[in-house]
Amino acid sequence: MTRIVYLSGEFVPEEDAKISIFDSAVSLGDTVTDSVRTFGHRPFKLEEHVQRLYKSLKVARIDPGCEPAEILAITEQVLEKNLPLLAPHEDYWLVYNISRGRFVMGPDPTVQRGGATVMIFNQPLDLRGWASYYEHGCHAVTAMSRAVPSQSLDARIKNRSRMAYTLAEMEVKLVDPDAQGVLLDVDGNIAENKGGNIFVVADGIVKTPICSNSLAGISRETILELCQEQDITCQETLLQPYDLYTADEVFFTSTPYCMMPATRFNGLPIGDGQVGSVTRQILAAWSEMVGMDIAGQALQQVTS
Amino acid sequence: MTRIVYLSGEFVPEEDAKISIFDSAVSLGDTVTDSVRTFGHRPFKLEEHVQRLYKSLKVARIDPGCEPAEILAITEQVLEKNLPLLAPHEDYWLVYNISRGRFVMGPDPTVQRGGATVMIFNQPLDLRGWASYYEHGCHAVTAMSRAVPSQSLDARIKNRSRMAYTLAEMEVKLVDPDAQGVLLDVDGNIAENKGGNIFVVADGIVKTPICSNSLAGISRETILELCQEQDITCQETLLQPYDLYTADEVFFTSTPYCMMPATRFNGLPIGDGQVGSVTRQILAAWSEMVGMDIAGQALQQVTS
Amino acid sequence: MTRIVYLSGEFVPEEDAKISIFDSAVSLGDTVTDSVRTFGHRPFKLEEHVQRLYKSLKVARIDPGCEPAEILAITEQVLEKNLPLLAPHEDYWLVYNISRGRFVMGPDPTVQRGGATVMIFNQPLDLRGWASYYEHGCHAVTAMSRAVPSQSLDARIKNRSRMAYTLAEMEVKLVDPDAQGVLLDVDGNIAENKGGNIFVVADGIVKTPICSNSLAGISRETILELCQEQDITCQETLLQPYDLYTADEVFFTSTPYCMMPATRFNGLPIGDGQVGSVTRQILAAWSEMVGMDIAGQALQQVTS
Amino acid sequence: MTRIVYLSGEFVPEEDAKISIFDSAVSLGDTVTDSVRTFGHRPFKLEEHVQRLYKSLKVARIDPGCEPAEILAITEQVLEKNLPLLAPHEDYWLVYNISRGRFVMGPDPTVQRGGATVMIFNQPLDLRGWASYYEHGCHAVTAMSRAVPSQSLDARIKNRSRMAYTLAEMEVKLVDPDAQGVLLDVDGNIAENKGGNIFVVADGIVKTPICSNSLAGISRETILELCQEQDITCQETLLQPYDLYTADEVFFTSTPYCMMPATRFNGLPIGDGQVGSVTRQILAAWSEMVGMDIAGQALQQVTS
Amino acid sequence: MTRIVYLSGEFVPEEDAKISIFDSAVSLGDTVTDSVRTFGHRPFKLEEHVQRLYKSLKVARIDPGCEPAEILAITEQVLEKNLPLLAPHEDYWLVYNISRGRFVMGPDPTVQRGGATVMIFNQPLDLRGWASYYEHGCHAVTAMSRAVPSQSLDARIKNRSRMAYTLAEMEVKLVDPDAQGVLLDVDGNIAENKGGNIFVVADGIVKTPICSNSLAGISRETILELCQEQDITCQETLLQPYDLYTADEVFFTSTPYCMMPATRFNGLPIGDGQVGSVTRQILAAWSEMVGMDIAGQALQQVTS
Amino acid sequence: MTRIVYLSGEFVPEEDAKISIFDSAVSLGDTVTDSVRTFGHRPFKLEEHVQRLYKSLKVARIDPGCEPAEILAITEQVLEKNLPLLAPHEDYWLVYNISRGRFVMGPDPTVQRGGATVMIFNQPLDLRGWASYYEHGCHAVTAMSRAVPSQSLDARIKNRSRMAYTLAEMEVKLVDPDAQGVLLDVDGNIAENKGGNIFVVADGIVKTPICSNSLAGISRETILELCQEQDITCQETLLQPYDLYTADEVFFTSTPYCMMPATRFNGLPIGDGQVGSVTRQILAAWSEMVGMDIAGQALQQVTS
Repeated sequence: MTRIVYLSGEFVPEEDAKISIFDSAVSLGDTVTDSVRTFGHRPFKLEEHVQRLYKSLKVARIDPGCEPAEILAITEQVLEKNLPLLAPHEDYWLVYNISRGRFVMGPDPTVQRGGATVMIFNQPLDLRGWASYYEHGCHAVTAMSRAVPSQSLDARIKNRSRMAYTLAEMEVKLVDPDAQGVLLDVDGNIAENKGGNIFVVADGIVKTPICSNSLAGISRETILELCQEQDITCQETLLQPYDLYTADEVFFTSTPYCMMPATRFNGLPIGDGQVGSVTRQILAAWSEMVGMDIAGQALQQVTS
Repeated sequence: MTRIVYLSGEFVPEEDAKISIFDSAVSLGDTVTDSVRTFGHRPFKLEEHVQRLYKSLKVARIDPGCEPAEILAITEQVLEKNLPLLAPHEDYWLVYNISRGRFVMGPDPTVQRGGATVMIFNQPLDLRGWASYYEHGCHAVTAMSRAVPSQSLDARIKNRSRMAYTLAEMEVKLVDPDAQGVLLDVDGNIAENKGGNIFVVADGIVKTPICSNSLAGISRETILELCQEQDITCQETLLQPYDLYTADEVFFTSTPYCMMPATRFNGLPIGDGQVGSVTRQILAAWSEMVGMDIAGQALQQVTS
Repeated sequence: MTRIVYLSGEFVPEEDAKISIFDSAVSLGDTVTDSVRTFGHRPFKLEEHVQRLYKSLKVARIDPGCEPAEILAITEQVLEKNLPLLAPHEDYWLVYNISRGRFVMGPDPTVQRGGATVMIFNQPLDLRGWASYYEHGCHAVTAMSRAVPSQSLDARIKNRSRMAYTLAEMEVKLVDPDAQGVLLDVDGNIAENKGGNIFVVADGIVKTPICSNSLAGISRETILELCQEQDITCQETLLQPYDLYTADEVFFTSTPYCMMPATRFNGLPIGDGQVGSVTRQILAAWSEMVGMDIAGQALQQVTS
Repeated sequence: MTRIVYLSGEFVPEEDAKISIFDSAVSLGDTVTDSVRTFGHRPFKLEEHVQRLYKSLKVARIDPGCEPAEILAITEQVLEKNLPLLAPHEDYWLVYNISRGRFVMGPDPTVQRGGATVMIFNQPLDLRGWASYYEHGCHAVTAMSRAVPSQSLDARIKNRSRMAYTLAEMEVKLVDPDAQGVLLDVDGNIAENKGGNIFVVADGIVKTPICSNSLAGISRETILELCQEQDITCQETLLQPYDLYTADEVFFTSTPYCMMPATRFNGLPIGDGQVGSVTRQILAAWSEMVGMDIAGQALQQVTS
Repeated sequence: MTRIVYLSGEFVPEEDAKISIFDSAVSLGDTVTDSVRTFGHRPFKLEEHVQRLYKSLKVARIDPGCEPAEILAITEQVLEKNLPLLAPHEDYWLVYNISRGRFVMGPDPTVQRGGATVMIFNQPLDLRGWASYYEHGCHAVTAMSRAVPSQSLDARIKNRSRMAYTLAEMEVKLVDPDAQGVLLDVDGNIAENKGGNIFVVADGIVKTPICSNSLAGISRETILELCQEQDITCQETLLQPYDLYTADEVFFTSTPYCMMPATRFNGLPIGDGQVGSVTRQILAAWSEMVGMDIAGQALQQVTS
Repeated sequence: MTRIVYLSGEFVPEEDAKISIFDSAVSLGDTVTDSVRTFGHRPFKLEEHVQRLYKSLKVARIDPGCEPAEILAITEQVLEKNLPLLAPHEDYWLVYNISRGRFVMGPDPTVQRGGATVMIFNQPLDLRGWASYYEHGCHAVTAMSRAVPSQSLDARIKNRSRMAYTLAEMEVKLVDPDAQGVLLDVDGNIAENKGGNIFVVADGIVKTPICSNSLAGISRETILELCQEQDITCQETLLQPYDLYTADEVFFTSTPYCMMPATRFNGLPIGDGQVGSVTRQILAAWSEMVGMDIAGQALQQVTS
């Protein structure tokens, strides 16, 4: 028994899910992506994610060769095939990777000469790495390098040309192997984490950078909604490291872990060095919305 | 009979050269690359290319799991296997792609948990797309987007996270399907082409941008050497579009085609709109150095 | 019978409206401007335009030699003289150009040695070039060059030193002779069009860049007012090309055409590629406000 | 008796040299320019200036409707007509202004619908304003605003959209009515003066900014030549205000005055506050080259 | 009788308040600061100031060796000792300077090897220099230099490494010895004054820059509160010099003088050149809040 | 027996060398500095250092109240008084700190109301912290923050407003307590260390950044001279972190330690991870020039 991957029209076992080394995914990092997670085995905000995937495809000028409705149908099929392999307390990460397809050397490698390469797969959400952060918070650390500016490649195109993010994350691990990176833009404003957005809480107000230099995260959007629901003031603005140093609370958001509190920033405690009450309140609201204890699931993975 | 690819320890037929969709090459564009071409079936400046590959690996913090000498030995083996399949008048493109290996979801996807994925392959140099440019020159066009700045990801790390280059090249194709892109840096200086360096000739002096915003091309280095040999003054400086508009000659350099003259820039003729004499002189010197007619080989591919 | 121009104290026939080639308007592009259009032969927001003209004069340190009230009076006189020449279904464009006056070579050419040169004229609004855009939308295209930053020359000083705009517009015409330019600022944010502001509609919300890098358009202001009136949320923020690529609707605003919908951006359709419903709603409200069918007038010019 | 101006095919008296207020020179500052001076009634480096004029025309995409040879012939004719009006000790300033011609409102005002407007005129070089600077030096002052960056409008396109220069010059006059402006680029490097280049002398070495943010002055080129001839080391580099504050000597260069020494910078003396020996040496060499005393001519105008 | 200073654990007479020239305050400008003023001899917003002082200490990584409560207690003691020396109509400026302590040469001068140097002192508020500005307004002038960007040193760390501010202020004094400086950030946006924030009033709306490039002033915060109380719309946004040129009113805010109206900007009158009604209204509200006539106190100092 | 300090006209014992907390050195970090070291008890390049000190004073607009010759005379006096206290194998660091003098609150704190505060002192060069670096090299680490740009405060004004440097150095100590900081400028180019310049050696060529974003170090100048003497090619250019990652050798220069080799950069070995031969050659040449073993002196301090 093995998980099944959808690969450009076929359903193949995970271990056979391979692509040619001549694919533009490999040759050019020319792949658009999106990912969804399930809560209680049901995908969360699936339509929003697929809609964002199609925005990324459009701006990246990749023709996936199929409509959103087909992608949604395939998603359901893949999930249906793989759910029997999922433990009751676990959840899946549903990932879309769509590359431009075969790469051909020449003066115009940008022409999409054949079909796109469409990869859709499920992976059990391994939350163990993040589990302790729900309770104790992580160590947020500023990278030495700066985020790619939007006039070079807009961070809202969710893509797989991520070497800049990876190298920046390796820089922050020099400070602390457990550090989670904080990327600044070229003007020194807070941009984003390698795969998530960043929020601060100060004097009861939740703030996050505007999306001109970061991914328009769906988890980020969820925070904005939950804040409104909980009557917590939430602002989209420009932030600098000073705001993180002097915040009462800081947290990251991303699809797999939803919220990751940070309790240290560049070696200094954030607030009282504990996960804060506003962070806990929002996470509780999110847990309630999806009908399961988000942090609890991660902690259970560690202890089981 | 089929060409053979070296893939992480094995020699496999080209059509079987596949990697897992879970490789960091696919998931993160986390691949370092270099490529060499042969002249008369012998690799040109192979050691320089492998040395640059190891610089890229170092700065990208990827452990390839083998030393340069081993890479050179494998290169010879792959080439030996594939040479019988090459027509006498053709040449090979030798490509190295080395990714960090398997990608694992979690708070630290940057750790290299297994061996690198090493891909080494040969492809016949299909020069037909560039052939007419040797005689008539191409149309150089400025991209709307700007090159990724070095403080985000240094262009000298020759890598496969190239979506920014691909999208910029698609922008210039809006002006002319045959256009070849000229990327500016965020300050508006000439940076590079999607895969090559840019030179202007003005009043008999050859100029090219310093490498703070562009690949340190080995073809570029070859031009500097040939100019010295030919007593042509050559300067590394900062250039702007004005320099291309008012140049007598413009050319690009890259491993596969060596030199690609441009005779138009953003719709205007460069100089008298013909491939210039300094360009021809340098290309002739290069042809002499490698003992074959570089442009002739490309033209032969078109006519045969 | 010919239209009359006010030229520094005199009313002269249009064909005699000439200025010395030694005027600073010619020698230095040292001219401040504003323009108004009529709807049904009455000037629209005339006072606002004259007030903005005086702001431009102040920041440009040009003494026009007369007060706003005088300018308003002359405007009425010129219009009165020229209205008999206007067809009932047509309207006028009223233009103010005020230069610093005679230019004198020397170490201080900035001193205003004589009176300003005041030019006030009417031209029939020739809307034929824009007519089809009301129905089918135009093609918005990003320029390769970047808008002049405010620390070099603030775009809110409405002036006639517009070579940067003209050359950027010529760049976008390389993509499509019918393209309308989208200028980015040096950070890659959407700035403005050569003579207008830019709006996007996404998820029912209207957004336009803040005025730190673009003209504080009176048509732009009118959109903000109409949106409020129509209960459409409207935000002034920072936008990037991604926002135009993924918008449901995009439109430009400027005095002569009021609103110019765009249905393509850099070769890709905007939304469904049709002029959108929010755009139509706002244009209808504007038409109602001024008591005439704005698009209809332009279409009539084409068909008549 | 009056001087004659060449105006788009006709020779007209200076007082009749007028252009329509609808010309793009007035409506858009859409004019390319160059200017030459005579020494002893003979134009200096005329061919170089006309060559640069044609570079500006090309990059500005203006078709002048005639070849350089014709321009040179007309120049001689105009000069011949006007020389009888010149006193023996005076010289002429020969100016070219070429606009795109008539401006037509509409979505594409950039199309050149008719012939260019070609203005060629002579003016006696009134050097009185600069005369005292040859002996005592001027006061160089940094502007608050910054030079237009090359990615907005390249300073090497010698053009008449100069409001940014004019306003910056008015800022420096706030410090001292006799101040001569020093424009910085947006990074804070020395760019240029409103109409000239800037040089410093420090420890016997002459330095001037590279031309990526300033006009490629022909007077600047002359300095480079004279330095080589005089065995004075001359470097093109990046300079900042610190270099002017700590220089031994500073001077400006421009066509009308050739060299203008500065002896104060932002209120502080440069070197010993006197015009320096290297400056004097270069000016003497220039005077010798052209066979007349450059400073002497200016001083004579003041005293006579 | 002399005022008493608290100096690292001791109460010493003002004239004996000296620190070693080897202190990091002198060697590195390594001092964090804050200052409070009294109204009617009672400190205003003392807790907010001490809280901000501790934010500065944290971000500057200086351990003061004592808790905020201790600082507050010492503040009261110092004030109690010094109040008998204060005339009834005068008020005190309470200043905190806390340096990292002794500086030791070597590869790590950043280690805090001994206790911090804590300086707390009172000075009679000498408001005479500002007095006339309450009635006639000051002359606001843009500096040639640019504010230190937040990615170099965040302006919200209230610190004593202020040479950049001092030199910029000396630049503006070149225009007018009475000028008050307006610093722009490196993008040309209004940042702050050498020791205060900047507000404009336009069409009845009060605007001030967001704090990404300026001190998060407590006086600034007070203005926001007073505006809310007075039903005056107040916006935090990006401003440029154009906004000051065209404003109806401009004022600065800082702890000693509270509000300083500006009635000229770079030589031009602001609005009608008089202190404006909104400025007067806010200052009146502030005076009422603190139970004394703020401007009156300053004027009294001049006349008495 | 104690060392003597010159303090504004008096010679005082080191422990009495104190200044008022109201001095602008403390209140504004308003101090210009320079420092010299002795070799074999004789100051090295003393005149150059004093000349640079006077450049800094000029640009900082501080009047020291005395001429360079007086400073040189006092330097000799101070040194003469302190030399008897120096062990034969030790050397002195001679430091100049000159502040603007007393700080007075008010609208113009920049006016120098009294004499400057002149501090001149000697300290035994404690080289123990650097000793091991001569043999094993230090760990160079990039700071998260960026160097203050020259348009905010030119690094060539050697000054004591150094909080930006101190905080950046504390960032790099997060990576490694022994790390030595590498500051980038806001464009991502290598600028300088908190107190020294940075050199790379690659393929036998020595390179260092141009001085537009770093101190014009006298030790840096000495390297340029020694390279010329030793026939080693030396270039002043723009460098990025890539150049340090891929260098064969890296070293810092500063007055106290002369040269500090770096053998790691951001956690990766530089070259073979050993102090390189070019570095050793230059250091040997320097030792020879000054007649003593520079590294030996430091090592002797550790072992003795």
